[in-house]
Amino acid sequence: MVWQNDVCSVILAAGSGRRICSEKPKIFREVLFKPLVNLVFENCKKAKIKEICFVCAGDGLGVLKGYFKEEASYVIQEEKLGTAHATAQAVPFLKASGKKDVLVLLADVPFIDAQTIEDAYFVHKKRENDVTVIAATLQNPFGYGRIEYANDRIKIVEEKDATDTQRAIKQVNSGALWFNVSALLAILERVDNKNASGEYYITTAVNLLTKTGCYLAEDANIILGANTNEQLLTLNEVAKDRVISYHSCNGVEFLSKDGVMIGADVKIGKGTQIFPGVTIKGSCQIGEDCVVTSGTFIEDSNIGDNCQIKSSYIESSVIACGVSVGPFAHIRAGCEIEDGVKVGNYVEVKNSYIGAKTKIAHHNYVGDCSVGFGVNLGCGVVVANYDGEEKHKSKIEDDVFIGCNSNLIAPVTIRRGAFVAAGSTITENIEENGFAIARARQETKPNYKRKRKGQ
Amino acid sequence: MVWQNDVCSVILAAGSGRRICSEKPKIFREVLFKPLVNLVFENCKKAKIKEICFVCAGDGLGVLKGYFKEEASYVIQEEKLGTAHATAQAVPFLKASGKKDVLVLLADVPFIDAQTIEDAYFVHKKRENDVTVIAATLQNPFGYGRIEYANDRIKIVEEKDATDTQRAIKQVNSGALWFNVSALLAILERVDNKNASGEYYITTAVNLLTKTGCYLAEDANIILGANTNEQLLTLNEVAKDRVISYHSCNGVEFLSKDGVMIGADVKIGKGTQIFPGVTIKGSCQIGEDCVVTSGTFIEDSNIGDNCQIKSSYIESSVIACGVSVGPFAHIRAGCEIEDGVKVGNYVEVKNSYIGAKTKIAHHNYVGDCSVGFGVNLGCGVVVANYDGEEKHKSKIEDDVFIGCNSNLIAPVTIRRGAFVAAGSTITENIEENGFAIARARQETKPNYKRKRKGQ
Amino acid sequence: MVWQNDVCSVILAAGSGRRICSEKPKIFREVLFKPLVNLVFENCKKAKIKEICFVCAGDGLGVLKGYFKEEASYVIQEEKLGTAHATAQAVPFLKASGKKDVLVLLADVPFIDAQTIEDAYFVHKKRENDVTVIAATLQNPFGYGRIEYANDRIKIVEEKDATDTQRAIKQVNSGALWFNVSALLAILERVDNKNASGEYYITTAVNLLTKTGCYLAEDANIILGANTNEQLLTLNEVAKDRVISYHSCNGVEFLSKDGVMIGADVKIGKGTQIFPGVTIKGSCQIGEDCVVTSGTFIEDSNIGDNCQIKSSYIESSVIACGVSVGPFAHIRAGCEIEDGVKVGNYVEVKNSYIGAKTKIAHHNYVGDCSVGFGVNLGCGVVVANYDGEEKHKSKIEDDVFIGCNSNLIAPVTIRRGAFVAAGSTITENIEENGFAIARARQETKPNYKRKRKGQ
Repeated sequence: MVWQNDVCSVILAAGSGRRICSEKPKIFREVLFKPLVNLVFENCKKAKIKEICFVCAGDGLGVLKGYFKEEASYVIQEEKLGTAHATAQAVPFLKASGKKDVLVLLADVPFIDAQTIEDAYFVHKKRENDVTVIAATLQNPFGYGRIEYANDRIKIVEEKDATDTQRAIKQVNSGALWFNVSALLAILERVDNKNASGEYYITTAVNLLTKTGCYLAEDANIILGANTNEQLLTLNEVAKDRVISYHSCNGVEFLSKDGVMIGADVKIGKGTQIFPGVTIKGSCQIGEDCVVTSGTFIEDSNIGDNCQIKSSYIESSVIACGVSVGPFAHIRAGCEIEDGVKVGNYVEVKNSYIGAKTKIAHHNYVGDCSVGFGVNLGCGVVVANYDGEEKHKSKIEDDVFIGCNSNLIAPVTIRRGAFVAAGSTITENIEENGFAIARARQETKPNYKRKRKGQ
Repeated sequence: MVWQNDVCSVILAAGSGRRICSEKPKIFREVLFKPLVNLVFENCKKAKIKEICFVCAGDGLGVLKGYFKEEASYVIQEEKLGTAHATAQAVPFLKASGKKDVLVLLADVPFIDAQTIEDAYFVHKKRENDVTVIAATLQNPFGYGRIEYANDRIKIVEEKDATDTQRAIKQVNSGALWFNVSALLAILERVDNKNASGEYYITTAVNLLTKTGCYLAEDANIILGANTNEQLLTLNEVAKDRVISYHSCNGVEFLSKDGVMIGADVKIGKGTQIFPGVTIKGSCQIGEDCVVTSGTFIEDSNIGDNCQIKSSYIESSVIACGVSVGPFAHIRAGCEIEDGVKVGNYVEVKNSYIGAKTKIAHHNYVGDCSVGFGVNLGCGVVVANYDGEEKHKSKIEDDVFIGCNSNLIAPVTIRRGAFVAAGSTITENIEENGFAIARARQETKPNYKRKRKGQ
Repeated sequence: MVWQNDVCSVILAAGSGRRICSEKPKIFREVLFKPLVNLVFENCKKAKIKEICFVCAGDGLGVLKGYFKEEASYVIQEEKLGTAHATAQAVPFLKASGKKDVLVLLADVPFIDAQTIEDAYFVHKKRENDVTVIAATLQNPFGYGRIEYANDRIKIVEEKDATDTQRAIKQVNSGALWFNVSALLAILERVDNKNASGEYYITTAVNLLTKTGCYLAEDANIILGANTNEQLLTLNEVAKDRVISYHSCNGVEFLSKDGVMIGADVKIGKGTQIFPGVTIKGSCQIGEDCVVTSGTFIEDSNIGDNCQIKSSYIESSVIACGVSVGPFAHIRAGCEIEDGVKVGNYVEVKNSYIGAKTKIAHHNYVGDCSVGFGVNLGCGVVVANYDGEEKHKSKIEDDVFIGCNSNLIAPVTIRRGAFVAAGSTITENIEENGFAIARARQETKPNYKRKRKGQ
């Protein structure tokens, strides 16, 4: 029997109505491109807690259900009357689940990791506590509830209620609490709102319980929340350092941490070198021995080994091995790019398949096109997919050569081995090994006087 | 009566002749794109001090007058004989102004803010001081004049004259001094130059006065000056943190501070997200809920709400709401871009009006053109404004569609609803709903042998 | 007689077989784009030590010989049996050289600079030591060999052999050691491998010698090695700060250190302003009073004074004075660009000569071309150098004007003063002052119905 069978979690996600200078509820604000509430949920999942109940505001329910679907339960807190009141909304869930212990978490405190959750649980069980507070030590504890030890128990003292002596305490409450469910159910009704804010606080429940304890986390960052934009910036900076440290240990080479923003769900192979000023977000997989230079932005894409990505944008695409991209390329959603392709400078590719070893080297736009193996698109060649009314698809087969500044007007098919002269606008299909030209003959006049107007 | 009616300021802006490895006098060196002397002047203005006199070098006078015009007085210090000598050049100004107190400032110490100036003034008046030194506490006071308290007064001891005991003092002179004008006028003549440098120092005046005091600023950064390039870099880093902190508090979202350089006169709406590596300088206003990604450079431009600015340059232009720019776009001076426009990748727009909902999506250059509502410029379309001798203006009316890689040779007018086939070079006007084509018919030859030379 | 005539150096470059999560041996891992082993070698050369012997692994020999050629001797350590065993491989070198003292260095500890080497040598000689350990003081000495003083000598105690008292010692061994050669030769045979690792350690030799001493380096960074990717990142960050500090002192202006990666062999003139997020690597020389904005990447190039380089790539090229590049330009290998040229946005130039005052302002590709003085290439003009089989060279003489979106199909020569109409594809040479046009006449149809398909 794993210990997780005996526990559940309640995540307080209703917010307090206060926002951090933002229209967006703070639980949906992001750290490294992921909402705080998702980070908290994932910490629970990594700790393998199976039953999770969100206490949410009415207008947040839809978003949460969209994120977590059947993986969680949801109850609504109609009025914002404090954290104990929020927890009380989950009583039916607690009773139905029949678990012995519950982990109460705040949805905007994202760094309480699975290991901390588990370690705190075992302290909680060993000491047979009614409640175990996950705490940390802060050099500057201002604003946090202090953990006071007295008479073989702890009390949480809020900033505004603290004496000077209490204010000097550096051990503070993270807001994450392991409760014995029976003890919690018994005490919740006794929590009152006789305090400055007139709210029902879960910390009042802690202070009313008999067997109380504390688990002191090693890493003080677990305490960090996001009540202000500056705190959110701090969370991002801490997360940035962690993710770089994680990938460094796995063999990724960073020249500097500066401006490197890598989301939590990004995988990077060893030997890959990341320059400063690189953003990689969403669900991405980067292969081994790649080089990714400054200014690159990659989202929801898979990239193979040995690729060179220079100062480029890559969105929702799959790129094979040995591909060279950029500088200043833009691979838009829906591209599949095979081994050894060159997508050069100022090249935009959108919703297209590009066969192996094809070169799209300069100033091209390839939209809605299937391009074969070993094709060479000259500089400035455009595959025009839009005729002003609809988008169409084109096809360029293997070994085709298209001269500079030519246009292929979709829908059009260029068969294997065909050749298009530079400067041509192609509107009709070209057969295998065909040659097409669509341009005027050059006329030259001598001794042209440089009255250049109206050329 | 506001207190500012009783005071004036003298800003010592002649420099010492020593430069910080630069041809440029140090008072014109910049912190976040603004000269030091302007920062000092603005601090005075924010403190609402009305009469300000610059003591400047002869070759700096023109620049200063260009900056501050009638808002300040100017006197020239012909010889660089020290700060007391510089202050003495302002004696006629002081006598003419008839103010009771004067704030003497150094033009290269830019962080002495309006609040500090005011707070120091009230200490100065309350204690009826002859002089009040604005001071700060530094952990490493090396190089600064130390504030020594003795016999109910203070003395400023320069680094090179200090005993070991004095060197251990951590309270130092910022160089900003409130003087009683009568006391200052009386003492200036008694300042001698009997010191290592042979200069007349204003600190000597301080040490000669009777009623001396000190106002200790909370923020030690007020002390920072710019005697070396490294100090200037420090000023920039401090200013960077401050400006990010300021905008964070106002609801702007920063993912990281790295490489974010935002000038002091930039306004940003709440909910706007700024990626690392963004430069915003000059007089700019950015709306709410925008996204500005890495590598973006914005100067002297206004941008509305809900815009996406991706790794682009925007200079001296006005952009409305819901506009998408980039990645890698370049909006040059003189553009006015209406709601919902798309300025896509590798698009350069210069001195043009772009009507609402128009799409200029890839590889375009639009120069000196008025473009209407709902226009679609295909990939690579160029509005060519230069004929080798002169620049001309063109006009594209509403609902026009221009096919890929077409050229519009200015001056040319394309009337409402017209259509230009891809690959056309257009030199003549097109009427409303007209269709224009200027390209050769496609010829195709079968079984072309790939002798490709001389195509 | 200079002291360097009496000394030689042995650099232990065989590695331990352990890699830092990388296929690449750690001595070839890079700090600011230069391999660790090169940094160590250059430190020796700067200290003017003439005879240097690498002890290397068999598979590293070729790379090292490629780097250092006749400037060093090389011996192979067949088996990795520890640092004393490695040093023992150099015994024939030591005997042949006949030097009195030898500096033993680790090839992956790159910050032991020439001054430290020299200062340590003079301490070594003055005290007539058998061995002098170059040491540093670390607040967190974990993992390093501690320097214990006892009975008028020092001992190096490895982490795993240390008592708690010894672990508290903060003075640690950098791995750099000055030995008296005779003493070293005599003691090497007595080193055993009776320790936890079963390796022959050079520190055992230190502990066996009689006259031992220590030179404590001022800068603790000299100790930094690269056993992990995170340590390598730290080395890069330290090196970054140093190189910025160096250039700042020489008059280069940095707005921020963030993301600024400048290689050790880069020279920059005073007054040049470097924005955050700039990479300059390899052998580069940047002139005075340039501006280099974020996202710029420069490699192996020389750039003159007063250039504006905006968010561009420049590779293996020479650029004169007053040149404006970018934003988003790409100057590829083999370019020579004269005074006052404009290489504008989205312009790629490759292996070309560009004469003074020429404007290549937008969306161009110029490949393998010699371009004269005062030429104007219109927007989108392409010099197409590749015909599908071979690359060819073209020539554009002085004062030529090429209209927008024209193609020049190489090989082609455009003589002085010629003019090409916009939209032309040019395949034949044009004489001096000639006018060429190669495009279809514009046909316009009224009242075109917007059935736009198949245009």
